[in-house]
Amino acid sequence: MRFSLTSQTSVDGVTEQSFTLGEIPGVLFTPEGAAGHRPLILMGHGGGQHKQAPGVLAGARLFASKGDFAVAAIDAPCHGDRPKNEQFIRFVGDMRTRMAAGEDPGELVAAMHDLLSEQAVADWRAVLTAVRELDHVGDGPVGYWGVSMGCGLGVPLLAAEPRIRAAVLGLLGVRGLAGSAARVTVPVRFLLQWDDTRVPRQQALELFDALGSAEKTLHANPGDHGEIPAFEIEDALRFFVRHLG
Amino acid sequence: MRFSLTSQTSVDGVTEQSFTLGEIPGVLFTPEGAAGHRPLILMGHGGGQHKQAPGVLAGARLFASKGDFAVAAIDAPCHGDRPKNEQFIRFVGDMRTRMAAGEDPGELVAAMHDLLSEQAVADWRAVLTAVRELDHVGDGPVGYWGVSMGCGLGVPLLAAEPRIRAAVLGLLGVRGLAGSAARVTVPVRFLLQWDDTRVPRQQALELFDALGSAEKTLHANPGDHGEIPAFEIEDALRFFVRHLG
Repeated sequence: MRFSLTSQTSVDGVTEQSFTLGEIPGVLFTPEGAAGHRPLILMGHGGGQHKQAPGVLAGARLFASKGDFAVAAIDAPCHGDRPKNEQFIRFVGDMRTRMAAGEDPGELVAAMHDLLSEQAVADWRAVLTAVRELDHVGDGPVGYWGVSMGCGLGVPLLAAEPRIRAAVLGLLGVRGLAGSAARVTVPVRFLLQWDDTRVPRQQALELFDALGSAEKTLHANPGDHGEIPAFEIEDALRFFVRHLG
Repeated sequence: MRFSLTSQTSVDGVTEQSFTLGEIPGVLFTPEGAAGHRPLILMGHGGGQHKQAPGVLAGARLFASKGDFAVAAIDAPCHGDRPKNEQFIRFVGDMRTRMAAGEDPGELVAAMHDLLSEQAVADWRAVLTAVRELDHVGDGPVGYWGVSMGCGLGVPLLAAEPRIRAAVLGLLGVRGLAGSAARVTVPVRFLLQWDDTRVPRQQALELFDALGSAEKTLHANPGDHGEIPAFEIEDALRFFVRHLG
């Protein structure tokens, strides 16, 4: 697959370079004027979001500016600038019908992640290889950030990819992930929202429980799915510095 | 009650002053050469422990040396250098018998905290007033640290004492504490050990849930009751700096 840098801009001391790797669109965030190798964080977005969703941008800019990290974000399969295939369109339509009919949304969300995860894992592994060849990234330690769908696609990635050494996950239940979670062995920070109306608390606790990592820490805060407090992003930066810095 | 400083020593940049307030023995930790006011952290020890138990010393020295805090630790009623009254001795004997007979230890622990809490709350409030009169402490912001019994006696203290503005609690279940926990409104960091053989996980989650605070964060880590990872103490320091610094 061909790697191309397509455009570049700088915001508050962080350079954001759009790229494509084959059909995968992405953005690479680095400290302005970065030269030489640095640790890399891969950031997976939530369902229905994309590589420049507000939550991704906030984290990526903080990690690059305050932690001197490189950060790569890509559109997940069938998300953002990527075409939605027929199977996905059919699945989303079907999902709406089944949710309206009162089916358990958790089950449908797990099935959606299952539909995307094989491609998502292959995408991330290819992007990881390509981005590490850049002079201002290099082959230093690698971390992963992904909550909600970013967790649903991140757990299989962590189970498959030994180059990733630490991860922030969360906002998701155990359904469909127990097997791959047990194969995760790197340090994990797991974010849980105590009043999450989309993810039953008990199922999120079970996903934390299922992770095979010897070092894993659950951080639970009041509030709904999208309401992770800002201090947890600062805390995640320190987590990455501790494990990758 | 008369406040007396009884002895003084310095270890690694931290001055430790033994004191008594009436019959309450305590230790005040301050940065060596401290002059002027600074935030104060009160540290409550666990059951069967005392004001200089290893967990208290480790936290107090870190908070004083790295955070420039004053830290006060006292012996809880019937603990450390304080006399055990008849009721307490009878209770402990009775507790051993009932535990040997298979009674729920959580219920007995809650009853023990209940036995001590009125005195413990009065002790802390008096110590707080006395210590804040010292020139190198003063009337700045106040925090509280207490896990296990330190949490069981700390929750009623926080419910009663408006001068305390942030607290680290944990390693305890909800039994006997739901009412006072609901009256706690300050930011709380709650530490839970995922494999705690003394505190059932569900009951600890319920105590976190019962806290009335709008800002509260649960940090859960693998390991048994006494195995809080060292990085949580560093994290607690940042929590106190954020809220009291």
